Amino acid sequence: MRPIEFYFDFSSPYAYLMAEQIDAVVARHGREVRWRPFLLGAVFQRTGDKPLPDHPLKGPYARRDFVRSGHFYGIPVVVPARFPISTHQAARVFYLLHDRDPAQAKTFARAVFRRYFTDGVDVSSLEEVLRLASTVGVGQVEALAEAAGSEAVKARLKRECDEAIARGVFGSPFVFVDEEPFWGVDRLPQIERWLAEGGF
Amino acid sequence: MRPIEFYFDFSSPYAYLMAEQIDAVVARHGREVRWRPFLLGAVFQRTGDKPLPDHPLKGPYARRDFVRSGHFYGIPVVVPARFPISTHQAARVFYLLHDRDPAQAKTFARAVFRRYFTDGVDVSSLEEVLRLASTVGVGQVEALAEAAGSEAVKARLKRECDEAIARGVFGSPFVFVDEEPFWGVDRLPQIERWLAEGGF
Repeated sequence: MRPIEFYFDFSSPYAYLMAEQIDAVVARHGREVRWRPFLLGAVFQRTGDKPLPDHPLKGPYARRDFVRSGHFYGIPVVVPARFPISTHQAARVFYLLHDRDPAQAKTFARAVFRRYFTDGVDVSSLEEVLRLASTVGVGQVEALAEAAGSEAVKARLKRECDEAIARGVFGSPFVFVDEEPFWGVDRLPQIERWLAEGGF
Repeated sequence: MRPIEFYFDFSSPYAYLMAEQIDAVVARHGREVRWRPFLLGAVFQRTGDKPLPDHPLKGPYARRDFVRSGHFYGIPVVVPARFPISTHQAARVFYLLHDRDPAQAKTFARAVFRRYFTDGVDVSSLEEVLRLASTVGVGQVEALAEAAGSEAVKARLKRECDEAIARGVFGSPFVFVDEEPFWGVDRLPQIERWLAEGGF
């Protein structure tokens, strides 16, 4: 069985709520999850959409809904003072880790999400990203720092973004279960039903 | 206790899924629902948003998600051949009925939603709207036809749209529980929790 694919941007609050839950939900059905960070900015260039705070009416609503959704799921949340932020450094380091140890990459990703959405700390800089990597046991951080600036990993992240758009990803979080697309953490019950029944 | 307020556009598929469920959910908590149709077009003029089919990537996704969500809730759905449609005639007739018999207005509204989203029939014309009114037992249909063209009911619908925007309504369905805003049928579990616990 192919893994479930979890597309996300590290700056997406609803992706954080999904990241805290998706592996446990999917594991109940004997499946695994492949995490695939991408950049919402690249998607918005294609769709003409814009970050949540820039939407009139929906922006203020989303702040409130995010906090309420955190309470609903029992997951601690704060709205970071700086939101949204650029997340290409976190995404690049994720893919570098992923290619040698996917489990460690997930642990790193959870640390990034929690630092941003429970501590409210800006995680856009390479320094903060590398510091978080070292706190979850990643070694050779100096080599990682150098690799994070390489053309190879930039091209890798660009390919991920292009593939996400080609598959119809327009927001974050976005999950594929055997090509069936699910947008938003509020689709978790439908994901669970799809896993249980293999379709409608 | 004030009624829960349910804002919707008759052309909104997710509002149809909400309309089929909201009164039963709210009744379990001893509350009632006030239905308030508005025009998404008026809201989009304010927010710069546009109808679902005009969104790249999100448009095709929404068609699929709507059908899947219907299956998820056990509610029959079709994607109408003509979508979206203008719904001011249905909204005007709704308010005319509402002011003499709110329960009858809801019965009428359900008939409009089902005609559009289970039979796939265009319900934008006054003729179809009045025919649906007569099928649910509304009398004096000729007087209703005349009133539906009056300046009074046009002004009433405009006030409803203005008030919706002033309260932050940016999409459909949109529900207020004691001023707490909930957007989307996927917020039903959070609405239910709010009703049960009176807050977070």
